[in-house]
Amino acid sequence: MTDVAVIGASMTKFGQRDEWVLELLSQAGEQCLEDAGVTPDELDHLYVSNMASGEFEGQTGVPNALAHDLAAMPAYTQRVDQTSSSGGAGIYAAWQSVASGASEMTMLVGGEKMTHCTTGESTDVIASITHPVEYKQGVTLPSFAGLTARLYLDTFDAPRESLAKVAVKNHENGTRNPHAQFQKEIDVETALDSPMIADPLRLYDFCPITDGSAALMFCPADVADQYADEYAVISGIGGATDTHVVHERADPTTMGGVVESGKQAYEMAGLGPDDIDVAELHDMFTILEFLQMEGLDFAPKGEAWKEMDEGTTEIDGELPINTSGGLKSKGHPLGASGVAQGYEIYKQVVGETGDRQVDADAGLACNVGGFGNCVTTAILEGRR
Amino acid sequence: MTDVAVIGASMTKFGQRDEWVLELLSQAGEQCLEDAGVTPDELDHLYVSNMASGEFEGQTGVPNALAHDLAAMPAYTQRVDQTSSSGGAGIYAAWQSVASGASEMTMLVGGEKMTHCTTGESTDVIASITHPVEYKQGVTLPSFAGLTARLYLDTFDAPRESLAKVAVKNHENGTRNPHAQFQKEIDVETALDSPMIADPLRLYDFCPITDGSAALMFCPADVADQYADEYAVISGIGGATDTHVVHERADPTTMGGVVESGKQAYEMAGLGPDDIDVAELHDMFTILEFLQMEGLDFAPKGEAWKEMDEGTTEIDGELPINTSGGLKSKGHPLGASGVAQGYEIYKQVVGETGDRQVDADAGLACNVGGFGNCVTTAILEGRR
Repeated sequence: MTDVAVIGASMTKFGQRDEWVLELLSQAGEQCLEDAGVTPDELDHLYVSNMASGEFEGQTGVPNALAHDLAAMPAYTQRVDQTSSSGGAGIYAAWQSVASGASEMTMLVGGEKMTHCTTGESTDVIASITHPVEYKQGVTLPSFAGLTARLYLDTFDAPRESLAKVAVKNHENGTRNPHAQFQKEIDVETALDSPMIADPLRLYDFCPITDGSAALMFCPADVADQYADEYAVISGIGGATDTHVVHERADPTTMGGVVESGKQAYEMAGLGPDDIDVAELHDMFTILEFLQMEGLDFAPKGEAWKEMDEGTTEIDGELPINTSGGLKSKGHPLGASGVAQGYEIYKQVVGETGDRQVDADAGLACNVGGFGNCVTTAILEGRR
Repeated sequence: MTDVAVIGASMTKFGQRDEWVLELLSQAGEQCLEDAGVTPDELDHLYVSNMASGEFEGQTGVPNALAHDLAAMPAYTQRVDQTSSSGGAGIYAAWQSVASGASEMTMLVGGEKMTHCTTGESTDVIASITHPVEYKQGVTLPSFAGLTARLYLDTFDAPRESLAKVAVKNHENGTRNPHAQFQKEIDVETALDSPMIADPLRLYDFCPITDGSAALMFCPADVADQYADEYAVISGIGGATDTHVVHERADPTTMGGVVESGKQAYEMAGLGPDDIDVAELHDMFTILEFLQMEGLDFAPKGEAWKEMDEGTTEIDGELPINTSGGLKSKGHPLGASGVAQGYEIYKQVVGETGDRQVDADAGLACNVGGFGNCVTTAILEGRR
C-alpha cells in the first residue's frame, strides 16, 4: 500500500451561486491545481463527487466535461456518489487510486448546484436517499433528525439548549470563514425561537440548501515534498454502512457507520480520539454533531451535550469541532461537503486557515450519507 | 500493489424486466455471492455501477439499499457512475479497493432499469452524457455513430455490408447466451433493410434499451484458491478520457480513450494484442466494434472491416469478439454492461460459458462511456 499525501486544496464560495455545477467544479479544480503546483497533464485520475447533477440540472457525464474543461485528457475520470457523503466517498476513492498504484496524481473535485430547484424538487431527490418504506410515508431525513433528537434529549436528560449551542458555535466559526454561506452570528435565543421544522428541531438546527465546490490533490507521500513544503498524509481512512431502513436500528442514537468507519480510521492511523486536535463532523442537523462525537469516542455515550457547557468543541477549546462553520453555517452542497471537510482539515494541519487556525497536528473528517446509512472517516496529519 | 483476482460472477437475464433496479441488483448480488462461495459478512466493500437510478426511477441511495437487502452491513458501499462505461469504471474501482489493501473482499454489482421510460425520457437522459454544445443541437450519440460510420466507410473504402456483418455475428453469438436480450439470428439482408436511424446506420446497427444486472467478486489473488479452483487474475487494467466535445477530435475514427486505456492495460499485463484470446468490445453501435479493434491493435488502422470477411472475430475465429452477443444482442443496461463484459471474459477464461466456450487463457473487456469520452480496458487471465 502506497502512503498517500494531500498536497493542495481549494474551495469556491459556498452559497447561492449563479453558475452551473460544471462551472463551479472547474473553478475549484483550477484553484486546486494552482494551490498544489500541479499542471493538468500531470493528472492520472480525476474524481468528481456529485450526487445528482442529472436530477438537479438534467446534465450527466459531468466528470468527462470537467476533464475537458481543465484540459486534463487523457486523465481517467469517474463520478463518485454516496448521497450526502459523496465527498467523503470521493476522498476514499482518490486515496484508493493512489494507494493502489493506479495513479500517481489524483484530483478530487466535489460539487453540487441546488438552489435553482424549488424546495419540492430538491426535497423529492433528497428524500429518495432513504428507504421507500420510510420516506414515502413522509419520514424524511428531517423527520429522522427530529425523532432522534427527541429520543436523545429524553434518554440522556440533555437540555434542549445544548443543541442550540451547536448552531451558535458553528455560526460563530462561520464568520471566520470567507467561503461559508452564512457570515452571521446567532445566539441561543434566536435558535430556540426560530420556526419549528421537526419537533424539537427548529430552523437553526438545520443546514441550508447550498451551491458550491471544493477540491483536493492526492499523490504518493514519498513525492509530496517535491510539490509542497507543508502537506498532509492520510494516515487513517475507513467507510461503513448501517441499516438502510433506519427504524430497524436497535438504538437510533448510535450511528453504526460512524463507529465502524472511525474504528477503521483510528486503527489504520495508530491513533485514538485523544490524538485528534481538530475535527469536521457532518452537522447537517445539530443532533448529528453529538451522535458523531459519541460514535468517534470524543465523548462518552449520552454525554456529548455536556461538552457544550465546557466549551470543549469551541475554536479555542480542547477539541475544536467544525472550525469551518460546519454544514450548518458553511453550507451543504451535497457532493462538495465531504471534500470541503477535507479542505478544512488539510488547511488546519498545514496551518493555512487564517482567523480560524487552531494548533493541530492531526485532524479528522467524518462525512455522513443519508441518516448514517453510509459513513466515511478520514484522519489527516500535517507534515512540515 | 496487491494482485487482484476475480473469484465469482453472475448476471440476470437481460431484456425487458418487471423488477426495479434494486431488485435486479439484489438478484445478481445474491447469485454472485453463491457463485464465489462468499457470505455477505465477508464483504468489506460493495460497489454499485449505475448511471441513472435517480433519473430513470426517482430513487437514489441504491448502494445503501443493496447493502441492506443483502445483509452486508457494515460493508462500505458507493455508486460508480461513468455514463455508459459505469460497469468498466466499477471494475476499475473494485480493483483499486483490493489492490490498495482497503478491502479484502469486494463485490461489484452493476445494473440499470430503463424499459419503463418512454423513448423521449430515456433519450433525454442519455443525450445529456455528451456536451450541451453538441446534444442540444440534436447531435446525440446515434448521430455521432452515423457521422463516424460514414467517415470510416468513405475513408477506408469499407463496404456498408461489413457493419451489417458485425450485427449478424453478435446476434448469432447471442443465441448461445441464455442471458441475452435477443435469441434471434439475423442475416445481412435483414440488417441492411432495417429502418434508417442515422445514415448510414440502420436499426440493426444499434443496441437495444435493456434492463438487467451483473456482478463480479474480487479478492487478493493470494487467497483466491481458498474460494475457487478456477479463477481469474486482473493482470492489466486502465482508464482514459478523450475530448468531451467530440467534434474537436482531430480524427473521429480514432478513439483516444480506447488507445490509451488499452496501452495501460497491455503494459501492466505485459501482454500485447496477439496474446488476447477473446474480447468483449462495446458495440453500442456496430461501427464501435471496428474502432475498438483498431484502437486496441487487433487490426491495423482502417482495416478492421476486412476481418469480417476473414471470420477472424467469429466464435470459431482466431480472436472471437463479443461471444456474449455483445451490447447489440445481449442488451445494454448502462451500469450493468461493463460488468457483464467482465462476466463474459471471466467465464470464458475459467471455462464456464457452455455453448459459446472458446479456448481462452487471456481475455480483454473494453467499455466505452459516451462516444469514447471515457474508456476502461481490463485484461483477465485464467488460473486453473
